Amino acid sequence: MRAAIISTGEEVLTGETIDTNSAWIADSLWTHGVDVRCMMTAGDALEEICWAFEQAAMRSSIVVCTGGLGPTSDDRTAEAVAAWAGVPMERNAEALAQIEQRYARWGRTVNEANRTQADLPKGAVILENSWGSAPGFMVHHGDCRVFCVPGVPIEMRKMFDQHIAPKLAVTAPPVLVRIRTFGCPESRLAELLEDVDLGGATLGFRAHIPEVQIKLRFEGDEETQDIEMVVSRVCGVLERWVYNVDGGDLAETVVSSLTESGDTVCLAESCTAGMTTSWLADVPGASAVLERAVVVYSNQAKQDLLSVSEDTLAAHGAVSEPVAKEMAEGARTMSGATWGVSLTGIAGPGGGTDTKPVGTVHIAVSGPSGIHHQHAVILGSRAQVRKRAAGAALALLLRAKAD
Amino acid sequence: MRAAIISTGEEVLTGETIDTNSAWIADSLWTHGVDVRCMMTAGDALEEICWAFEQAAMRSSIVVCTGGLGPTSDDRTAEAVAAWAGVPMERNAEALAQIEQRYARWGRTVNEANRTQADLPKGAVILENSWGSAPGFMVHHGDCRVFCVPGVPIEMRKMFDQHIAPKLAVTAPPVLVRIRTFGCPESRLAELLEDVDLGGATLGFRAHIPEVQIKLRFEGDEETQDIEMVVSRVCGVLERWVYNVDGGDLAETVVSSLTESGDTVCLAESCTAGMTTSWLADVPGASAVLERAVVVYSNQAKQDLLSVSEDTLAAHGAVSEPVAKEMAEGARTMSGATWGVSLTGIAGPGGGTDTKPVGTVHIAVSGPSGIHHQHAVILGSRAQVRKRAAGAALALLLRAKAD
Repeated sequence: MRAAIISTGEEVLTGETIDTNSAWIADSLWTHGVDVRCMMTAGDALEEICWAFEQAAMRSSIVVCTGGLGPTSDDRTAEAVAAWAGVPMERNAEALAQIEQRYARWGRTVNEANRTQADLPKGAVILENSWGSAPGFMVHHGDCRVFCVPGVPIEMRKMFDQHIAPKLAVTAPPVLVRIRTFGCPESRLAELLEDVDLGGATLGFRAHIPEVQIKLRFEGDEETQDIEMVVSRVCGVLERWVYNVDGGDLAETVVSSLTESGDTVCLAESCTAGMTTSWLADVPGASAVLERAVVVYSNQAKQDLLSVSEDTLAAHGAVSEPVAKEMAEGARTMSGATWGVSLTGIAGPGGGTDTKPVGTVHIAVSGPSGIHHQHAVILGSRAQVRKRAAGAALALLLRAKAD
Repeated sequence: MRAAIISTGEEVLTGETIDTNSAWIADSLWTHGVDVRCMMTAGDALEEICWAFEQAAMRSSIVVCTGGLGPTSDDRTAEAVAAWAGVPMERNAEALAQIEQRYARWGRTVNEANRTQADLPKGAVILENSWGSAPGFMVHHGDCRVFCVPGVPIEMRKMFDQHIAPKLAVTAPPVLVRIRTFGCPESRLAELLEDVDLGGATLGFRAHIPEVQIKLRFEGDEETQDIEMVVSRVCGVLERWVYNVDGGDLAETVVSSLTESGDTVCLAESCTAGMTTSWLADVPGASAVLERAVVVYSNQAKQDLLSVSEDTLAAHGAVSEPVAKEMAEGARTMSGATWGVSLTGIAGPGGGTDTKPVGTVHIAVSGPSGIHHQHAVILGSRAQVRKRAAGAALALLLRAKAD
């Protein structure tokens, strides 16, 4: 099944907004076994939106369109669909009832502009929007089904899952397995998987610094034991880098792992300066496993807050294995946490030397089973060095816990 | 002048990659006075890329295309352009020389796959790529000029600025003024500017949580004094929220302001847990103004690291004005920094009460002129609450410094 994605809105065409909706929809369609063949963005002019629908329908049997369902005069998606399908517009009673109920619940009165959101192509099937005011709709014309949903990401995502995914009419929906890896570039992972027998699986990747997700899509009639065999084969080859299968991201994995074992962690960050801590805190409930953390850029701060010895700093410099280890131990002792994690490095663009170039990072994890250390020279911009270092610290903590 | 943007690549159609290139190009074209009328994404199939060029050229006089210039068999942008322009492909001597020079400089040998990157439509004008291996090119056909550049963002951006922008042939390039604001939603800013006389300026917005940028585009023949008058009118109306004109983001503004005055800062974060510190550390040179910071989720950590009194915590709770103030003072005293900044709040989704709902945040800034405090209830997800709170802390520091 071939699909096209349309986004509408002048704010996309001026570069004001990055179109993340289309990527999210493409990923969801792929997951459901539907291949997207093109994406288009049109402005608010009726003629331009009509063009997008005509082109999309010529090239696919499913079209998902976001945006242009609001109450103002530049919201013209419904009119464009009506023109494409050759049907008149009419005020849809079901849509109107939903709008009125929604406003009543919010304690607001419905004005005529709001009611125009119920003006839809004749024969449209309503897709209820429980999270905002504009209902979505579906129109079937020729061999093509068009789904229109609002451009507000949270409404769009919930409506896709609730209304569009079940209507994709894939008789046996595919099974998707997401294998999360850290520490190996996507191109290298692809090389390593070249000779692996993936059975009937379709291979995909999704890189999101600092991790790379491997997506294996199995057709719906694939036997569970065959799926498990392929997944275990892939995990076997990539063992060093896989940190979970069908689980959360690195920070979520760390928080749930610590929660399960009843452990706590204290971080001491230099080059990453709070980024690693902030990633953990993004996870709801993180405060149960993370009681405190420190950012220690200066040597004085490392001494004051973590009891790093002046001699160690003088002998090895702040970016060194001994200092990273004393930082991790200091973090653990100072906080009473089960685990102390430290990062010290040179994020750049300045500050590098011949022996310690920009990107040099030392990471240490201190815990019940002793101390773990990792040294790396990370290539990339300041932001990339910091993100990859933060990811490496979380991955090292997971490995230390598993030891 | 009307433009279209094309991105190519299966990784965009599967949702693996979010197409940030098109938004960046759209913003740059808008800045140069060129209006983008459509964006399209095509896969790697020749027929699909040809379709995108045909459609783009029918609707605009400038087409910018990213991706598909690599050395592998799925890189077919050049062939598609040749098919569209009705010219043969040929090995371009200038492009080949550039590729060979680049590889020689890297100390690598050029193989036949690399040489195919010089196979371009006959008559193409080469756009040198000083940052990667694939040269870009321009083809003029009919009333339309097509620019093709690699999809690697850093190469694309540099090549756009160096080769495409100067060729946009706008006789008097427009002047763009960016006014950066914090704390007021975009819809409200738009309302406030409705009655302001913007002269000949075209108004645009760019929202990037937690800030909103106001873009004023003046045609190239606009007098400097008229531009200044409009900018000062806008800044006058939005005074409370504007934090700079044509400058960096909030974190960059804070770091440069502290650097200029020779000040330092120490942060004490609870709900934001290192995010604010990490934003400052994103700015190269931040270590000169930021010596240390602490994340203090628990009451015990607030007492141990910041000397917040147990009585204050017991009497008012951790999320309160008195605790925020003691945290800011504690941060300043503990570190010896010029400024102490604190945040304490309820990021959600759990932890809210009737009197302190999710989103409640107390921020304090302690400095040479005394102590400043701000209380807010921020609506949104956990991530949004944390980002807006971090932004508010930086904005409060700037206001305290200006006092």
